[in-house]
Amino acid sequence: MADGYVGMVKGVIYSLNPSAVIVDLSHHIQPQNIRQAAFLLFNSYSYFPVGAIHLAVVDPGVGTARKAICLHLPGKGYFVGPDNGLFSYILEAEKENGLQAWELAEPAFQGLKISPTFHGRDIFAPAAAHLTLGENPENFGPAVLLESLVRLKKLWPEVILKSQHRVIRGSVTQIDRFGNITSNIALASLGSLNKAQSSGLQAVCGNLKVKGLKQTYGQAKKGELLLLAGSSGYLEIACSGGSAAARAMPEIIQPGAKFKVVTGEG
Amino acid sequence: MADGYVGMVKGVIYSLNPSAVIVDLSHHIQPQNIRQAAFLLFNSYSYFPVGAIHLAVVDPGVGTARKAICLHLPGKGYFVGPDNGLFSYILEAEKENGLQAWELAEPAFQGLKISPTFHGRDIFAPAAAHLTLGENPENFGPAVLLESLVRLKKLWPEVILKSQHRVIRGSVTQIDRFGNITSNIALASLGSLNKAQSSGLQAVCGNLKVKGLKQTYGQAKKGELLLLAGSSGYLEIACSGGSAAARAMPEIIQPGAKFKVVTGEG
Amino acid sequence: MADGYVGMVKGVIYSLNPSAVIVDLSHHIQPQNIRQAAFLLFNSYSYFPVGAIHLAVVDPGVGTARKAICLHLPGKGYFVGPDNGLFSYILEAEKENGLQAWELAEPAFQGLKISPTFHGRDIFAPAAAHLTLGENPENFGPAVLLESLVRLKKLWPEVILKSQHRVIRGSVTQIDRFGNITSNIALASLGSLNKAQSSGLQAVCGNLKVKGLKQTYGQAKKGELLLLAGSSGYLEIACSGGSAAARAMPEIIQPGAKFKVVTGEG
Repeated sequence: MADGYVGMVKGVIYSLNPSAVIVDLSHHIQPQNIRQAAFLLFNSYSYFPVGAIHLAVVDPGVGTARKAICLHLPGKGYFVGPDNGLFSYILEAEKENGLQAWELAEPAFQGLKISPTFHGRDIFAPAAAHLTLGENPENFGPAVLLESLVRLKKLWPEVILKSQHRVIRGSVTQIDRFGNITSNIALASLGSLNKAQSSGLQAVCGNLKVKGLKQTYGQAKKGELLLLAGSSGYLEIACSGGSAAARAMPEIIQPGAKFKVVTGEG
Repeated sequence: MADGYVGMVKGVIYSLNPSAVIVDLSHHIQPQNIRQAAFLLFNSYSYFPVGAIHLAVVDPGVGTARKAICLHLPGKGYFVGPDNGLFSYILEAEKENGLQAWELAEPAFQGLKISPTFHGRDIFAPAAAHLTLGENPENFGPAVLLESLVRLKKLWPEVILKSQHRVIRGSVTQIDRFGNITSNIALASLGSLNKAQSSGLQAVCGNLKVKGLKQTYGQAKKGELLLLAGSSGYLEIACSGGSAAARAMPEIIQPGAKFKVVTGEG
Repeated sequence: MADGYVGMVKGVIYSLNPSAVIVDLSHHIQPQNIRQAAFLLFNSYSYFPVGAIHLAVVDPGVGTARKAICLHLPGKGYFVGPDNGLFSYILEAEKENGLQAWELAEPAFQGLKISPTFHGRDIFAPAAAHLTLGENPENFGPAVLLESLVRLKKLWPEVILKSQHRVIRGSVTQIDRFGNITSNIALASLGSLNKAQSSGLQAVCGNLKVKGLKQTYGQAKKGELLLLAGSSGYLEIACSGGSAAARAMPEIIQPGAKFKVVTGEG
């Protein structure tokens, strides 16, 4: 980034803990797109070591009344960021697993000066750094009820049962750098598919229509569109040896666009 | 980057010191834009740990007679890079604080082969790595007088006093990834503003005109332009929930374009 | 990247070895461009510490029959990635230096679940992490004959001897972020050039024609095209204080385009 914001966040963390290990997950979330970040976080957090601290800052409401929070997921790790829906998927998936939340309110764990436009550097990074040093999040501020935290609506697709098939109305979650168009429709959510059902599966996303489920990019001819489960288990439209996004109408190549799947009969 | 230059620089550093900790500040400075890099460095260096080594390579004169230098700022850290103005703001801000400079001339602290086009890898990275190992910069080469180092002109805006108000003629320092257009006009430089003066403050940058000073992005309606102090304390034009740069004429969305502020009467 | 793939790969490595040190070489290789990645790897690997593990994943055939491999180069380091030509230059340059190869076949050194579309995360990253922990690559799977590994054709330019000069038909290897257009024609391959031969040297790449060899960007006037050896020793067309790529026809500013050099008479 030309802007140095990420570097400053890391500088703050290393200033508090020179031995911290920092991994960049993504700095290219669409500006203000909380939903996109929430889904990415949900698909990524289990690949990190036990005790990992997930610092997530997509924060259009910075400086307003929205809370700054820390979540602890016992046996897994921590999440630090604004209470604006970023942790919606985590809250849903882990609510039975001892998840706890606190507000980041204690000035002792914040920067000396707090800019009203960059809590990533001045509030969230210090909290994350203190967690790497073993600080107990109870000291950050008052406990917060999980039920009171902001959650996005419509986290998952709508499934409509028809007599012979199902229609699943999901949405685009990301366009990756290969031009694959990924949805929030889990392959697993379709249940076990027989061969006829697999080859009858249809996906529609804007002007793109694909029929039949593949397993790998190499199973389609070069330049051909295909439907397959991406590496996180969600259906995506790809183009073998090319970019599906380059074939798509501009409206659909952004997170939130409609992505529909219809199961084959049988 | 597709080009691997940054990776090679890091490889060189780790080859000399496998325990080095490296943070990326920015690899997206506009090519050859020394001024942009100088300002970014100035706004960032205080967020890094004491002893941090700031390696800065925007180096259009690589291979020519321009000096390669190392600065030491006692109690803060080091700066390594070409003597082309990159350190102008540091030199101005820290000249009373014991700042010292040396030329990087000693081959023992350089790569075995020196490419005439990539001193970042072959001269600056080895010097930075040797500093992480505790090397005394006096051994790098002859001391250099601070007064002899290259400084950019017009580091700061021009202020014109009128009878009822002030006109501050500054410039754009960066367009961040959110499309905020940042200037080199410090909010603090306007002195304390009463409520009428705050709401009377006007910014003009190319086709963009904004009146009134806000504190946070959330204080404007979605899609509305606003003027506020960014996270480093400089005035910026932003768009709530959107990108100010997307509204701007191409000429102004690059570092160096004019950015004017007029204080309100009263 | 918006997609988080690289972050997951790093999460997997740190989960296995929290003390690993990870350097990003490039995440911006043109999708599916094995040749571009192979050349970048070849030009970069010698700048990394002895024992470095080079994890390279440009893998359009992921999930198909292509092998997953590990190479060991004694006294230098390791290479991990798909057997699709990515290591062609290494195989050619280091075949006399004790290079050995193994297939990544043993599930104990792979992720618990293997996605058919992301072996970077599920097979290559775990292997690389186990190497950082000192694992012997013999345990990863059966040894593979170097001769059986996939190699790209036409790694190097064709040289045509004429009575008074030579014509070297190479190709573009990368456009770097400064807009320099780099070839696979090594300056060293032209032999020693006298002054007349240097100034008579001509490069042609699409619509761009440059005569005369320079040593540094600063030796040309601002805005002027120039021909010089880039930091890895290969001829490149640059523009002093500007971007050569911005002057070029779209066809040539991608890896693989023709780049021809004709030596001067004399």
